[in-house]
Amino acid sequence: MLNTACVCTIGDEILIGQIIDTNSSFIANKLNLLGYKVESMVSIADNLESIVATINSLIENHKIVVVTGGLGPTKDDITKQALSIISNSKSLVYNQSQLSLIKEICKVREIELSDLNRDQALVPDTSEVIINYRGTAPGHIFTIDKNGYKSYLISLPGVPYEMEDMIDRALSTISTYEKSTSFIYHKVINTFGIPESVLANKISDWEDSLPKGVHLAYLPNPISGVKLRLSTYSGDFADSIKKVDESAISLSDILKDDIYGYEDDTLESIVLSILSSMNMSLSIAESCTGGSITSRLVSIPNSSKVIIGGITAYSNDIKTKILNVNSNTIDLFGAVSKECAEEMAIGIKNNFNSDYSIATTGIAGPSGGTEKKPIGLLWIAVATPNGVYTHKFVSKGDRIRNIQRFSSESLNFLRKIIINSFH
Amino acid sequence: MLNTACVCTIGDEILIGQIIDTNSSFIANKLNLLGYKVESMVSIADNLESIVATINSLIENHKIVVVTGGLGPTKDDITKQALSIISNSKSLVYNQSQLSLIKEICKVREIELSDLNRDQALVPDTSEVIINYRGTAPGHIFTIDKNGYKSYLISLPGVPYEMEDMIDRALSTISTYEKSTSFIYHKVINTFGIPESVLANKISDWEDSLPKGVHLAYLPNPISGVKLRLSTYSGDFADSIKKVDESAISLSDILKDDIYGYEDDTLESIVLSILSSMNMSLSIAESCTGGSITSRLVSIPNSSKVIIGGITAYSNDIKTKILNVNSNTIDLFGAVSKECAEEMAIGIKNNFNSDYSIATTGIAGPSGGTEKKPIGLLWIAVATPNGVYTHKFVSKGDRIRNIQRFSSESLNFLRKIIINSFH
Repeated sequence: MLNTACVCTIGDEILIGQIIDTNSSFIANKLNLLGYKVESMVSIADNLESIVATINSLIENHKIVVVTGGLGPTKDDITKQALSIISNSKSLVYNQSQLSLIKEICKVREIELSDLNRDQALVPDTSEVIINYRGTAPGHIFTIDKNGYKSYLISLPGVPYEMEDMIDRALSTISTYEKSTSFIYHKVINTFGIPESVLANKISDWEDSLPKGVHLAYLPNPISGVKLRLSTYSGDFADSIKKVDESAISLSDILKDDIYGYEDDTLESIVLSILSSMNMSLSIAESCTGGSITSRLVSIPNSSKVIIGGITAYSNDIKTKILNVNSNTIDLFGAVSKECAEEMAIGIKNNFNSDYSIATTGIAGPSGGTEKKPIGLLWIAVATPNGVYTHKFVSKGDRIRNIQRFSSESLNFLRKIIINSFH
Repeated sequence: MLNTACVCTIGDEILIGQIIDTNSSFIANKLNLLGYKVESMVSIADNLESIVATINSLIENHKIVVVTGGLGPTKDDITKQALSIISNSKSLVYNQSQLSLIKEICKVREIELSDLNRDQALVPDTSEVIINYRGTAPGHIFTIDKNGYKSYLISLPGVPYEMEDMIDRALSTISTYEKSTSFIYHKVINTFGIPESVLANKISDWEDSLPKGVHLAYLPNPISGVKLRLSTYSGDFADSIKKVDESAISLSDILKDDIYGYEDDTLESIVLSILSSMNMSLSIAESCTGGSITSRLVSIPNSSKVIIGGITAYSNDIKTKILNVNSNTIDLFGAVSKECAEEMAIGIKNNFNSDYSIATTGIAGPSGGTEKKPIGLLWIAVATPNGVYTHKFVSKGDRIRNIQRFSSESLNFLRKIIINSFH
């Protein structure tokens, strides 16, 4: 139990399935980096009795318990009351730094300061306060003494944007009290385009010969492909890291350019970084993907160095008028065709004067499919300084899933064309 | 404990924070609809001992336990082994229906059928199988007899797309065994544009006078605004529903058009349904939002009836060349200005020949801000058959957060303009 941790999220909205808990995952990552292994994640309701009972039992069994949620200004938020009970606090006191921030936030947002806002700065007298610079509810650290052995209870707001700014400060405060003795090391290898079972067969020999103590996990995802995670939890630190890194290198010899990146690399971040390093620009013409390729690329900081712009040509009129697709092409082959995709790619490349361009045309569903051109059919074209390349893809999902897979498949095709054209 | 349930997700990838668990939320929704209250959600590692111990303890305390994950074809997936132990299964048997589907899936995907694939159809002989039509791993129901009192253990794949297609069939099988006696009723009211604390003050009197047994929760979210959830868990069925519905109606008298919808309504689905009902078309010109407004609209089925298309005009060249923004306007006022937004909206409306248009120009960050035009500044323009309207907005987040808020604020401004122009 020395270095184990637990994440507990509080809120009826989680238990009735109204919101998806993204905090636990974010916090687990941070705990891992400090060498704490997360043994479980628990979500419970806004109920005083069950909050107190659950946290008391978790703190009994873990070195660090991180709790999020229930710190808001409204009447359904009761975590602070529970924290007072758990930490044996005698009274609530105003934290002056947080109070000043609350006043400032109200001023910027042009909201009158209410009692609800002001009382957000009230904290149990047992709390070591973590200031919330992005919102009004402060966070807390409580040191719980169990017969001379200390555990730490961290309580943070449930709003991810606020919590994400506070967790590092909370954990680094604890790090000054406790030196972690163990370590955890992960390496994630990101692949795209090979189904999980095919991948498993392809790397089966490599998997069987992994060094002792190195564990492999498969993480399939329609948007990011199959990620492979190598982990080690024990042994000599330097030696274990070396084993994991060497295993990753031997894997890249097998999978080659089916690996698009590592760790948090995404298809869009990789495409942008390659184009940016070559000083090349890109424009995008989308039909069925409706802006999703463009928005994935634009979400990356500094994408404006590469991305000139894009067109969502949802109607055929726009395809002919703005992208200069020949109307005969649409009459002869249809809007969802290799030929139309090619002309869209050429049209936007010329019109936007970019070095590269990508175009998509397909059928996302739920209607519009035919026997010859079923729902899920996509044509992708990439225009480069040396020519135009096309790729056909079929997805078998609902509308949203198809659009997601279309945009990932398109970005991956673009990535492969760019890599090869520089060889 | 009669009607309580628990959701348990299995997978190291969850505990190390590599993936976000979306299954629990989806399943909780389904359990609620059947009248089962979800008391907790738990995530645990791919470890045989802890899977068996955790599920045994959960099944002891709940009527239904839904488990996802760990059913894949690869070596780290051990849930099936745990299920055999928990349900006292003597052997694994092939399920012929799932085996046929696996063969078919391999054929369609042009993959050779491997032992790994084939063995996905092996199930404990105690399992009532839920066929997986979207993947290779079948699901299971186990009936656990506890001295004459029955509980149900459901095990489904962790891939959301597969699980989502199977959960209804699993729960309806259980419904034929057990009639639920209690009920849960929720109503969700979706607001946009009012901060949580201002909203709380505005509806404070209404909140204080809510009928007994009707509970209110605030669910703030940067993309969808503050949702208000009214819930009732007890009392006479018809009477409780009436109380909740009447409370929602009196709330709509207070908040008026700050309410954009109910339940799963989104800003984009509402904008589309209003425009569609009026037979009006829309085009979109985006700068800093980079296609995210267009892709949110296009993600809605049948959006092609309304959406003609969009342009992401990331560079000034495209703004002048394709959207006909006067280059003097950019020189005089800058690309991020009321004037530029107006000309972009008019430009795309004329160019794409739509009834309505919306245009955005702003600074998403992390660079590009100045003292006068800080990061987070957005100008929105909406062109209608009757004129052009503009709105200024300031967001205080990082790049991704700013783009999300920009697109929501834009859709909400568009919604208000459309509603008013039809008054």
